[in-house]
Formats: sequence, structure tokens, C-alpha cells
Amino acid sequence: MKFTSIFPILGWIKTYSRQDFTNDFIASIIVAIMLIPQSMAYAMLAGLPPIIGLYASILPLVLYTIFGTSRTLAVGPVAVISLMTAAAINEAGYNELQDQITAAIMLATMSGIFLILLGIFRFGFIANLLSHPVITAFITASAVLIAISQLKHILGIDIGAAHLKEIIMQLYAGFQEINYMTLLLGFSGCIFLFWVRTSLKPLLQKTSWNDHLIDAIVKTGPVFAIILSILAVYQFNLTESQNVKIVGKLATGFPPFAIPHFNWEMAEKLLPSAIILSLVGFVESVSVAQSLASKKRQRIKPNQELIALGAANIASGFSGGYPVTGGFARSVVNFDAGAVTPLAGGMTAILIAIITLFFTPLFYYLPQAILAATIIIAVLSLVDFKSLIQTWKYRKADGISSALTIIAVLIIGIEPGIIIGVVASLFLHILHTSRPHIAVVGLVKDTEHFRNIHRHDVRICDETITMRIDESLYFLNSRFLEDEINRLIATKPHLKNVILMCSAVNEIDSSALKSLDGICDHLNSSGIKLHLSEVKGPVMDRLQHTHFLDNLTGQIFLSQYKAIQELSPKTIC
Amino acid sequence: MKFTSIFPILGWIKTYSRQDFTNDFIASIIVAIMLIPQSMAYAMLAGLPPIIGLYASILPLVLYTIFGTSRTLAVGPVAVISLMTAAAINEAGYNELQDQITAAIMLATMSGIFLILLGIFRFGFIANLLSHPVITAFITASAVLIAISQLKHILGIDIGAAHLKEIIMQLYAGFQEINYMTLLLGFSGCIFLFWVRTSLKPLLQKTSWNDHLIDAIVKTGPVFAIILSILAVYQFNLTESQNVKIVGKLATGFPPFAIPHFNWEMAEKLLPSAIILSLVGFVESVSVAQSLASKKRQRIKPNQELIALGAANIASGFSGGYPVTGGFARSVVNFDAGAVTPLAGGMTAILIAIITLFFTPLFYYLPQAILAATIIIAVLSLVDFKSLIQTWKYRKADGISSALTIIAVLIIGIEPGIIIGVVASLFLHILHTSRPHIAVVGLVKDTEHFRNIHRHDVRICDETITMRIDESLYFLNSRFLEDEINRLIATKPHLKNVILMCSAVNEIDSSALKSLDGICDHLNSSGIKLHLSEVKGPVMDRLQHTHFLDNLTGQIFLSQYKAIQELSPKTIC
Repeated sequence: MKFTSIFPILGWIKTYSRQDFTNDFIASIIVAIMLIPQSMAYAMLAGLPPIIGLYASILPLVLYTIFGTSRTLAVGPVAVISLMTAAAINEAGYNELQDQITAAIMLATMSGIFLILLGIFRFGFIANLLSHPVITAFITASAVLIAISQLKHILGIDIGAAHLKEIIMQLYAGFQEINYMTLLLGFSGCIFLFWVRTSLKPLLQKTSWNDHLIDAIVKTGPVFAIILSILAVYQFNLTESQNVKIVGKLATGFPPFAIPHFNWEMAEKLLPSAIILSLVGFVESVSVAQSLASKKRQRIKPNQELIALGAANIASGFSGGYPVTGGFARSVVNFDAGAVTPLAGGMTAILIAIITLFFTPLFYYLPQAILAATIIIAVLSLVDFKSLIQTWKYRKADGISSALTIIAVLIIGIEPGIIIGVVASLFLHILHTSRPHIAVVGLVKDTEHFRNIHRHDVRICDETITMRIDESLYFLNSRFLEDEINRLIATKPHLKNVILMCSAVNEIDSSALKSLDGICDHLNSSGIKLHLSEVKGPVMDRLQHTHFLDNLTGQIFLSQYKAIQELSPKTIC
Repeated sequence: MKFTSIFPILGWIKTYSRQDFTNDFIASIIVAIMLIPQSMAYAMLAGLPPIIGLYASILPLVLYTIFGTSRTLAVGPVAVISLMTAAAINEAGYNELQDQITAAIMLATMSGIFLILLGIFRFGFIANLLSHPVITAFITASAVLIAISQLKHILGIDIGAAHLKEIIMQLYAGFQEINYMTLLLGFSGCIFLFWVRTSLKPLLQKTSWNDHLIDAIVKTGPVFAIILSILAVYQFNLTESQNVKIVGKLATGFPPFAIPHFNWEMAEKLLPSAIILSLVGFVESVSVAQSLASKKRQRIKPNQELIALGAANIASGFSGGYPVTGGFARSVVNFDAGAVTPLAGGMTAILIAIITLFFTPLFYYLPQAILAATIIIAVLSLVDFKSLIQTWKYRKADGISSALTIIAVLIIGIEPGIIIGVVASLFLHILHTSRPHIAVVGLVKDTEHFRNIHRHDVRICDETITMRIDESLYFLNSRFLEDEINRLIATKPHLKNVILMCSAVNEIDSSALKSLDGICDHLNSSGIKLHLSEVKGPVMDRLQHTHFLDNLTGQIFLSQYKAIQELSPKTIC
């Protein structure tokens, strides 16, 4: 392995130009402005103090700059991973804030180690277990869960629950305790942010302003909301007079850089969560990185991405942060703002470090309701019912996996939901292959091509029947094939030859081989010969060494056309 | 559903002739003679009193006669199921004999109910989960376990353990306590039975005797051993003088017919065992029944077999017996002895009932060592290393499943072993489909047939490449395809067209569809068009309704030949 494939920075840094720097710097400012309120809000969503979100937005970005292969991915706290962190800590039963912070740091570190191991052993493909319908459903359900979990901040009610049912019950029970000033702030925050997101851009586009300027204004919408709300709380003294909850005093200074204290009992409790969280984070990050890279005809390397994300998470754990990954909205902003290399991320990190060092007192009066509004509006874009409906229309089995995932996430919980989704999609895939499609085929006129007799105008004859089996033959479907052949030959009294067209048979395992043997014997007892055609190379290699070939009453033909030429020549002319 | 398909007896009884009766009766005598010592021995193997084995050989046979679809299957206690019963009772922690008997009755009843449910809902296909390599390995490992577990009876040592490791350790520890008279009896019993099985038949065939007579003599070998040993023990008073363990006093009279007392706690503990035991019993029974039926060109109905075996097991539970199924050796004897209908089984039941009613005192002096010898010699025929080696040679993945099953059964236990085998075979199947074989294909000269360029002498061109994907495209392999295509096009600078030949693609799920979309975009950005050929009907039906077709830069061709005719005509001429 080359040195630059471990440290991709050594590749692109050589040709780094002044122009690149300008582009990256502008992008880094915009992303930093976006990331500061977001990272605090997501930390809150994870049930952690807002400062943890800032810590998670410094060192991890630097590490990704060194190890990452995507030019524009912006790493940091993201909504779904924050929710999963909250759920993991909650499930493990940690109620004290100090334990929760330790658990979050452990999660980040363990997730980082796991990701790096996956990367080193090139095991990135296990992320494929999360199929597209399951991930889409999971993210949509999480977004709904996140939005509902933030309602307490908007309404100003104290709620400790993590499960949807409990949250809703507690919200219902706490209806009298609504803090109306908080509600006013939160609700108007939502309305404003929603308006910025949906209506401001079209409005500005009517002016003669430059498109980049318009984009910049739109992206800084949350910052306006934050500044306005801080001023309002400060001016009208809403904290004391109206009991509006604010962010309050944040720690100042460098993140507490330290090797996490390793608590084995905690590690054991959190390990399954760390694994699931890592896989979800990786899938989310890689899909974003891939779609952005393909826009510029670049490629990312999934196994190196595992190492980069792993390093970022370990760095997060070592600097008092919590699990991070590449975020969708943020990366798109970075991309649109013109970032050309991962150095944009490094510069974002420096800007956030400066804020964290010197300017946290500015956030003292920031109302929590506004952070909640930021989250709610941000996650709404993750809800993707359109894609779910398309999935359902395209393939019912995928739709069922999606539906099960959504229901399980909402009712049972985040991690069980994703596991149920994975198991369901594997089960449905296997179920499908256990009852394969079998087509009787005939010759398409004036060609050497064979197709389903029910779909195409084809030629067949009574004495020779050809069945195309649309699946590999293996233990789960081998008996099914026996039944189908028996059913078929029962209707054909003049039958002399059965040809199994194996163009779609990618594998014949031992159980299926035994079944084929049985089929051959059974057909033979009725005076019918069994032939195979279009057996693939790898399958034929295996058959070569078995006594199935000795027992076979018929022949094996290279092509189906040759089989028909020999067995039923009158079909052709 | 017709009445005769629920009660197959109503079908064959109509044409039952005097000749049929004579045939069935002779077979029933031979099977009964074989079954009496076997059923007692197997009950002992299950850790139960010998009489339970006789009870399990009466009513269950009658029920199978009524409901079964195999003409020659002989139902009753079998070695593997007896061992599984012992393991299940042992795992559940029942040490008192009365509890063990109750648990065995519960197991039979629950297994019966489960089998009938499977039959009614036509769920018999779930037995397909037990692939051929797993079943062969499981039975071989069980046979080894059974043989070793019987050594204590041959050596006359008291051993309570059920795990292989413990058994071996206790055998080793108890070496000084060997009862040499028991050892002499047991060892000579083994030698005699082995000689009968392997050498007696060839010897007798040198005489001019009738083949049927020879067979009958050979099959009654165990009876000779039993009679001789009873006489020896009685004559030399070996029980008292040498402390040789005997069967002792057996209950006389009818089986205790009663509805089993349902103990919920026990039911809960035994349920998983009952399910696994049912599936194993069903698979064993159906394979025997199928192979015998096909010899006479008869068919059995698996779903009705579930009901018949279920009824037999419930009957066993209701008459003080333990789980039963169709046994291999016994059914072959029944078949060879000329049984023509299930009534042979019914008559066997009557004969055993008569023995149980009046003649159990005859077995008083039967030494347990001889029963153990019967078991050891019987299970040796179940050990099938040849088939395991063949499996390994044919397909490594199947060989690995086999090996894992054997190791797990011997080291961890019967039920975990079988579960590990099933999970391993599913996992290896999925693993195989996650990295599909992809062949670049070209035109076979003078045909319209396309084959792998590395295996056949084919024509290709530089501008158009055809890849045949030998697997359905689904979430586990969709990214793999992207990587393969990228790797391939990197080596082909002049490429203009990529054709995916989909003759082996039986399914394209949502994740794969998204990947194809991505592949199409990516190829397009390099000025390469993506085409599909030979897309199957069911797959095309789905694609029809997606926007993938709108985005597709190339075309979809009915046949690969048409694709080449259009895109690269000079390849053809």
C-alpha cells in the first residue's frame, strides 16, 4: 500500500494553490457559521451539554482532513447519530450527567476503533447490510423521533423519556405546564427558519443579487435567528421574568484533551450500540461523499473512509467530544460554497476552535427553544416519504422492510429498529430465492434466443420441454424445483426430454445436486431424459467432479439453441 | 381438500387384497422382532425406562397407518431423536426419573402439535433450512456421540454426563471400576452383531438358501444375541455373582393411556427443543420415505407427512411414549420384507402390544450391555464420512457447514450444533451472493451465443464491452458491481458502450436500482453509454415503472445478439 493512500493529504497538498486556499477559506467560514449552532443543538439532542458539540467539531475535522478521501465531506455532529448516542446512553441506564458524558466519549472512541479495524481488514462491505430502503426508512423515522423529542424545548416542559410513547404521554401530561414565552420564541423560530429555508431564496432571486450572495444569506438564516433570540432574551430579561431556559455558562478554553478513562463495564454495555452507530454513520457519510464526488467526477475510497471516520471519532473521544460522521446538509453547503479540498474542513476546525476559546460567553443568553427549532427544521429535510412510496411501488419486499423499520424504530427503539430492518431485508431476500420463478421457454422466431412462452411469441414442441430456472439452486429451493418439475410433467403425456436451461443458475450446492440426481432418476422412471443447457463455467467446473454427470440420462449443451437443434430439430425450421 | 387426502388410508384400503395382507403380515413380524429390542435400547439412550420405548412403538404406528402417505415407512423410536430427547431433558435440568418421563411425554405431545400445525399451514418447506450437508454432518456427529454414550453400559460404569467432554472424562476416571463380566458380554455382543451385519450375509449366500430367508436370518441377528445373553445371565446368575446390570422388571399391561398433564413451566423450557427435534425428525423421516417411494415410483406428500408424524407423536405422548419418527434401518427392513401398505405398520403395532401385554417378564434378565451393543452397531451405519468428504470436494462452503456442524454438535451440544449448522449455511450462501461472479463475454463463433472470454474462443471488440453478472442484484452486492465496473473501464480507454447481460439477474432490488442509476451517471460522465440485454420478464415488469429507464443513456435489448448487432456489427461478420 502506498503512503499517500494512507495519508491522502500528501496527494492533494502538493498541488495546493492560492486560489484553492481562497475557495476553501470562504467555504470554511460559511460552514463554521452553520456548524456552531448546529453542533450545540445536536449535543443537546444527544442529552449532552452544548459545549460537547463544539468539542466534537474541532479535532475530528482536522483528522478527517488528513485521512479523508472526499474533497467536500464536512464531518461533525449529525442529527441521527446524536439521537442514537442519546438512545444508547439511555438504554445503558446512565442517569448522572457525568456518566453520560463519559459514556458519550467512550462511544466515540469505541466507534472510532471499530471503524479503523473495519478499514484495515477491508470489511467495509458489511455496511451493505443496511439496504437503501432500510436506511431511508430509518432516517425518516429518526427524523420524526428527533422532531418530537425537541417539542419539550419548544414548549418549555421537562421530559426525561426517550421512547416515543413515553414522550407523547409526558407531553400530554405536561400540557398545563407549558411556558408560553418559550413557546412563542420556539414557534416563531421554527416559522422563521422554515420561511428562510423555503421562501427566502425565491424571494432574493427576484433581486439582481449574485447567486452566491443569496446562498450565503440563506445559509446564515439560523445565525440570524440565534442573534435575534439572544438579544431578545437579554433585552427583556426573559430568563428571570419568564423562566425561559437558556444555554447558560459554557466552559471556555481548549477542549479537555485526554486519553479516555477506559471503563470495561461501560464498554461492554455500549459495544453493540457503538457497532450499530458506526455502521449507520459510515453508510450516511459514504452516501453523501459518493454523491458529491460523482458530481465532480471524483471517486472516494470506502475502506480509507472507514479509517478517516475512525480517526475522526477517536479524536472526538480524546478531546471530550461524542460520535461524529459526515453530515448531509453541512457537506452540501461546503460543496456549494466552493470547497475544493479537505483543508476547508481543517480551516472550519480552526474557526470553531477560536470561537470555543474566546467567544462562548456570547451564547449565554441563547434560548434552548431556538436550538430546538434549528434541529426541527434541519431534520424535516431528512423525512423522505416520496422515496419510501417509490420503494413500495417498485418492490413490495423492499417496501415491507421499510415499513417494518419505521414501525420498529418508532415503537421499539432506534437500534432494535435498524436490526429488525436488516433481518427483515435478509429474510425477504432469502424467502424470494426459496420459491424461484421458473419459466417454460420457447424459441423466438428468426433468432437463436429463447423466451417465456407466456410472454413472447415462441415455438415449442410436445416432446421436449425447456424450463428456465431463474435462481441459483441451493438447499432452500431444491425441493421446490422437484415439485415444479413433477407438476409440469404430469400435464405432458408425450414428453421425452426435459431441458433445464441454466443461464440463471449461478450456483448448485450439494443439496441441490442431490435433488437433481433425484429428479433425473424420477424422470428416467417415466422414460424422460434430463438435459442441461447453458451451464455456466464456474458451475460446470464443480459438476465435472461428481457422479451426477455419470448418472445423467441426457446431455449437457453449451447453448440452448444447440440443445434444440439436436433434440427437437423440427422446432427450428 | 378431499377426505382421502386427510385420511390416505381410505384410498388404499379399498383395493386391499388377501395377497397384500400376507405380504404386510410377514413384513410386520420381521419389523416387530427388530423393533422390540431396538425400542427398549433407544428408550435407554433417551435416559428413560425401556418400557417407554415399547409404548412409543404401539399407538404411534397405528396413527401413522391412518394418516401416512408412505407405503413402507416404519415409525417408532429412532437413535438421533432419542439422543435429542435425552439432551433436551438434561438441558432443562430434570434429574428425577418421574420428571424425565413427564418431560419426554411433553416433548412428544408438543412436537406432535407443532408438526400438525406445520402441516395444516403447509409450512413444511421450513424443513429445507436443514441442508443436506448439515443433516449428514449432524447425524454422523450424533452417531459418534451415541456410540460413546453407550460405552458406559458396555464397561459397566455409572456415568451421568451428557456432554462429550464430561463423558470422556468420567469414562477415564471410572477406568478402575470396569465390570469385566459386563464388558465381556457387551464386547462379544458388539463383535457378534458386527459380524452378523457385515459377514453373515455373504456367508449364507454361498449356501443354496432362498434370498428372503437369508435376509430374514440376518435381520434377526439382534434377537439371537438377546436370547443368548438372557440365557447366559439366567444360567450363570451373572446379576448377583458378577453384578451385571439387567433390564429388570418391566411394567406389564396396556400403555397408560391419558391426556398428558400440561405443565406450563416445563412446556416453556422444552419448546425450543421440541421444535428442533420435530424438524430433524421430519427431515429424517421424509428423506427415508422419499427414497423408498421413488424405488417403487410412488410419491409421498410432505405436508400430509407432517400431519401423520404429528398424529403419531401426539399418540405417543397420550400413551406414555416419547418422540418418534420414521426410522431409516427399520423402514428399509419393512420395504425389503415386502410390506405393500401402511397396514404392515398397524400389524407391527398389534404384535408389539401383545408382547407388551404378556411377555415383558421374558426380558427380565436381558443385560443392558447387549442393548447398548445393539445401539452401537445400529448407529455405526449412520456414520457417513464418505458423503462428508464428497461434500467437501464438491463445494468448500458446504464442507465448512458440515465441519462446523460436527464440531459444534460434539463440543457444544446437539441443538446448538444444528442451529450453528443452519446459520452457517445461510451465512455462506449469502456471502457467496454478495461477491458475485462477473464474466466479460464475447460471441461464440458461428452462433448467437455469448460466453466468458477467458474460457471460450469468442469475438469481442474494443469499443463495446459486455459483462454478464452471475447473480441477482440486491443490497448486499450492489456496491460490488459499481466497483467492478469502475475497475474494468479504467483499463479500456476506447470504450463507448457497456452492456450488462442480465440473463442471470433474477431480481433487481431498490438498492441495486439506485446503484445502477449511479453506474449509469458515472459512465455517462466518461462518455460511455450503459445498455442492458436479456432482462427477464419479471425484472423488466418492475423496471418499467421507474425513472431508471428515463435516465438510462443506452437501450434495453431483448437478446445479447441483438445488442451486438446494433452496437458493434463488425464483431459479427
